[in-house]
Amino acid sequence: MDVLIPYRQMRSVFREILERNGFDKPQAETCAEIFAQNSLDGVNSHGVNRFARFVEMVWKGYVKPDQGPSLVHAAGAVEQWNGNLGPGPANALTATRRAMEIAAAHGVGCVGLANTNHWMRAGYYGWEAARKGYAFIAWTNTLPNAPAWGARDCRIGNNPLAMAAPYGSEAIVLDMAMTQYSYGALEAYAMSGKKLPAPGGYDEDGALTIDPAAILQSQRPLPAGFWKGSGLAILLDVLAALISGGDATCRIGRKEAEHGVSQVFIAIHVAGFPHFKHVESAIVETIDYLHRSLPAHQGEKVFYPGERTLQKRKENTAKGIPVNARVWDEIVRLAAKPPAAYGG
Amino acid sequence: MDVLIPYRQMRSVFREILERNGFDKPQAETCAEIFAQNSLDGVNSHGVNRFARFVEMVWKGYVKPDQGPSLVHAAGAVEQWNGNLGPGPANALTATRRAMEIAAAHGVGCVGLANTNHWMRAGYYGWEAARKGYAFIAWTNTLPNAPAWGARDCRIGNNPLAMAAPYGSEAIVLDMAMTQYSYGALEAYAMSGKKLPAPGGYDEDGALTIDPAAILQSQRPLPAGFWKGSGLAILLDVLAALISGGDATCRIGRKEAEHGVSQVFIAIHVAGFPHFKHVESAIVETIDYLHRSLPAHQGEKVFYPGERTLQKRKENTAKGIPVNARVWDEIVRLAAKPPAAYGG
Repeated sequence: MDVLIPYRQMRSVFREILERNGFDKPQAETCAEIFAQNSLDGVNSHGVNRFARFVEMVWKGYVKPDQGPSLVHAAGAVEQWNGNLGPGPANALTATRRAMEIAAAHGVGCVGLANTNHWMRAGYYGWEAARKGYAFIAWTNTLPNAPAWGARDCRIGNNPLAMAAPYGSEAIVLDMAMTQYSYGALEAYAMSGKKLPAPGGYDEDGALTIDPAAILQSQRPLPAGFWKGSGLAILLDVLAALISGGDATCRIGRKEAEHGVSQVFIAIHVAGFPHFKHVESAIVETIDYLHRSLPAHQGEKVFYPGERTLQKRKENTAKGIPVNARVWDEIVRLAAKPPAAYGG
Repeated sequence: MDVLIPYRQMRSVFREILERNGFDKPQAETCAEIFAQNSLDGVNSHGVNRFARFVEMVWKGYVKPDQGPSLVHAAGAVEQWNGNLGPGPANALTATRRAMEIAAAHGVGCVGLANTNHWMRAGYYGWEAARKGYAFIAWTNTLPNAPAWGARDCRIGNNPLAMAAPYGSEAIVLDMAMTQYSYGALEAYAMSGKKLPAPGGYDEDGALTIDPAAILQSQRPLPAGFWKGSGLAILLDVLAALISGGDATCRIGRKEAEHGVSQVFIAIHVAGFPHFKHVESAIVETIDYLHRSLPAHQGEKVFYPGERTLQKRKENTAKGIPVNARVWDEIVRLAAKPPAAYGG
């Protein structure tokens, strides 16, 4: 059963909990905003559903609430930062804004962020940059959680990637991991007893399957596009390590928990280009052209990346954010805990 | 039947033909080198097999052999260039090298190239940059040649993407189009009478199929990873238009032939970073870790992106480049034509 939680209430509950767990006011504010916004945008898996686990990562010492990124090396329009194991969402937002600042001065800005933590939802940073007039590409590596093409054991990360472009006052935002389905999506399908709409991995016998439970059992999710998603995951990992100076997936896999990942943020200040207004019209034309696609199935329509996020955001803003009642109960219990009861 | 053509012979025949078709010496040299190198690397579809069609595009006036890129707008580490409908491979190589030059000065360099032509093989530019110490990302848009996710008619391009990283004296290079199979690959499978190893598109009834002929018939190739490849294609197109100031796929589709496409080249001078030697060891470790994957099928192994290209390059360097005898005959006839016989 779902309860409906207004965005402002959710954000303020999150903020309160974080402030009681070692976050200073601005850091708590930032992380609460990102977790609440991700939920508002319909991505509870990297919002409210993940919040308790995030707090647990703080208790266990993997996420350091009093740390933030520090500059390691600057070379013109590229900078390398150390995330100092601070909260992933706040670190990633700082890096996004820094890439935008550099781009405002140099046309393009690239920030490599080493030694940081899970940023939750790639798309958040895409919306942030694109709505302010920046073309944006960012990605993270992860621990090994998928097999490379041709392999049985998990040695590549699913390495989520965000790509975003300004679109009027809104944005076109792609947010994709390199596996066909995230573990969160597989779990959701398995819990609802549904099959996947397309093969999502292998069963224990090595056969492609649409059975989410069989994939969770074998731990062999399918890279999106078979060899293509596998190749992309490898390049994103290698580039993240090279550009940030941080750990690659193989090293993250040797840690006792997923922390200290590597990320890259590239912003290009396209709104500052002389012909931006003219090119903007080409984007509007592109979306219109896509919308006029002949649907594969009668009554369906084609969406541009980010379009349904925007719809969901409006819907949840009006009605409140639907949250599983047990998930919200856990949050409420976290908020009610006396400060002395916190800690690992 | 194949004939074996040594690389140097192929390159010199190409150069001669181009010089007789309006290319000056350096432009002919560059394009001949790229077409021959693509063949040497085992990608005949964007090398020798495509050369006659490239010359035809010159005859028809779509590719202007006496044109090259000119600077439109510079903003620090970003530049917008107009390709002036010059030869795609030479334009793309100029843009790659310019992105590297900017990166050598600013850490990162980004070049948007509008109004250019088919660059043949994305990976070529990746090898060029990565072997010289640059992390590299580049992509092109194309005419509409695939349906968006949920659509029946072709309104997205397959928009090939190159990502590359230095790896010792060689490189890790991903070269992928956004459809699961290129039209070239579908044609090759269909000609050999083989089925595809994984679904590659839809038949006339809208069912996923491994029959390449049915996909060529329906003209509905599958985006790699279903909705994921579709989303990537849309973002790559929109970003190419925004960053280069050039045409988006929807506008390229209105031209009488595919020309005047938009491309982006991003180079990051990672070899100039202070901890590069340390990070290089992480890359070596990553590749070693991938190579030690448990194979999905006994006797198989996992390759890193670019590994088989390197093998093929060595093999073809030693033995000559295998070329379909009829394809090579056509090249030889082109070379033997008296200059006066050229022209559309």
